[in-house]
Amino acid sequence: MNKPYVIGIDIGGTNSVVAVVDARGNILGSDKIKTKDYTEAKAYTDALCKCVVGLIKSTGVEGRVNGVGVGAPNANFHTGSIENAVNIPWAMGQKVPLAAIIKKETGLSCLLTNDANAAALGEMMYGAARGIKDFIMITLGTGVGSGIVSNGQLVCGHDGMAGELGHVIVEKNGRLCGCGRKGCLETYTSATGVMRTATEILATDERPSLLREITGRPLTSKDVFEAAQKGDTLAIEIFNFTGRVLGEALANFVAFSSPEKIILFGGLSGAGDFLLKPIRAAMDENMLFVYKGKTELCLSELKEADSALLGASALGWEVK
Amino acid sequence: MNKPYVIGIDIGGTNSVVAVVDARGNILGSDKIKTKDYTEAKAYTDALCKCVVGLIKSTGVEGRVNGVGVGAPNANFHTGSIENAVNIPWAMGQKVPLAAIIKKETGLSCLLTNDANAAALGEMMYGAARGIKDFIMITLGTGVGSGIVSNGQLVCGHDGMAGELGHVIVEKNGRLCGCGRKGCLETYTSATGVMRTATEILATDERPSLLREITGRPLTSKDVFEAAQKGDTLAIEIFNFTGRVLGEALANFVAFSSPEKIILFGGLSGAGDFLLKPIRAAMDENMLFVYKGKTELCLSELKEADSALLGASALGWEVK
Repeated sequence: MNKPYVIGIDIGGTNSVVAVVDARGNILGSDKIKTKDYTEAKAYTDALCKCVVGLIKSTGVEGRVNGVGVGAPNANFHTGSIENAVNIPWAMGQKVPLAAIIKKETGLSCLLTNDANAAALGEMMYGAARGIKDFIMITLGTGVGSGIVSNGQLVCGHDGMAGELGHVIVEKNGRLCGCGRKGCLETYTSATGVMRTATEILATDERPSLLREITGRPLTSKDVFEAAQKGDTLAIEIFNFTGRVLGEALANFVAFSSPEKIILFGGLSGAGDFLLKPIRAAMDENMLFVYKGKTELCLSELKEADSALLGASALGWEVK
Repeated sequence: MNKPYVIGIDIGGTNSVVAVVDARGNILGSDKIKTKDYTEAKAYTDALCKCVVGLIKSTGVEGRVNGVGVGAPNANFHTGSIENAVNIPWAMGQKVPLAAIIKKETGLSCLLTNDANAAALGEMMYGAARGIKDFIMITLGTGVGSGIVSNGQLVCGHDGMAGELGHVIVEKNGRLCGCGRKGCLETYTSATGVMRTATEILATDERPSLLREITGRPLTSKDVFEAAQKGDTLAIEIFNFTGRVLGEALANFVAFSSPEKIILFGGLSGAGDFLLKPIRAAMDENMLFVYKGKTELCLSELKEADSALLGASALGWEVK
């Protein structure tokens, strides 16, 4: 193999991580830029390409990189563009032809898929979905993403944009979403959704809570997790509410593709049983009987950053 | 071809239609039994097998039938059983190993899939989904069924039971469904769902309606259609409500598999624009912007009975 390395890029709402990966999934080196520090697409892509070129040099793999794979929100596999990603300032309301830009700036061919699809590919190759042909990956990060695998293939849809389960409307006239509609799943079960729930519960429930002691900075879902670990009733209630909303949605998703596993991934999934227990209870309560007890809910087996990165990098082998 | 014929069986909530079909999709002859006239599985399967054997004789194709394909509610392709179909008295709360029974009684090998999947196969071979790789078939009959095709393949799920979109919960604590849960799509958008809506609207809206003149027998969705054709305000409102519920659900389904087409099929789809217009309006209003205007809503291009029958019969070529 003349070109035994690929570049994986995982574009998240907060960070864009770039890594050099070998054929066995080892990460030789990585670097990152802040996704949200840029408001213009050109400034972002310039910084990203500079980061890629710098990393190739610092890891000493010049001339031996096969291609680039990118996982990004609202990425279209067919067109190689990021299309109207609502959580990314430089990609709102426009199409950013990232694959073409990377090719032009670095000389490397590039394929894109959405970040959750990339995570699903990573999980299928190295993680909890090895040997599994039907599963759904749910990413609980700044937003809520999904990668759906059916019959061993990614469900991409006719336009390459399938699998936006974070934007399934779960509550009519519910919370306003970044996409402009109301009641999307991600307004409840993303890290930011959890903070909205926390704000609501702290405002309406007068019981004491450790969370009330955090002032002078915005609450984070990590605060809620740490409070829950200390037995804080309201923190636990926040996760119970979040899990219930997600479990009800997952029960509906099962009626679609009857997956063997649903794999949770992303920052919020670190809450573990605080989230998993209410999700499982709500799934069980709301599942059509023909599916009951058949779909396993589990956590990603890969380190959070690695899953999307490795999945994205896998696309670097597919370029022509 | 020594065995140039197949048997297709379409098991609906009301009728079970059996047909002899040739390789070009021509129906040589057909017969039917009443699905709901039987409470015991054995009595039903005896009658069905008798019907199959009789039809083979009357069409003169003895010894030249390749196999049997069955489309039925809650049919499991992997096991050849009908599992807990909630609208069929003889299949509630149990598994009926229909493929094995047909093989034993007729000597013909048999494959099963759910009725909506069969309709999707029929549409893909002969109808509105020719050449289409990503579409969703929604059957609006006694219940609401669905067949999902992604990347040109039926989405069957790990257990062969995927695609029960009629049992997606669209209204928390909504109408009680035959499945024991509340708020399933089919409690609103099946033919029986429409009748529940009619009953509710006629009881709560005091405006005059042709539907109030129908007494001494239960209302049917055909009555509502005929009243709507005559400009009856409440009949039109019944379809508007039904279409709105279905359109909101379809917008969510698009976020799953981003289909090029959604094809409506089954008795209720005969209401045409009375239903299609409010569905399209609700889809458009509730669709995530990345999907807006991309998914075509259309009616099946096959005669209602034929689509499921032809799709089911196609499985008769697949038997070993």
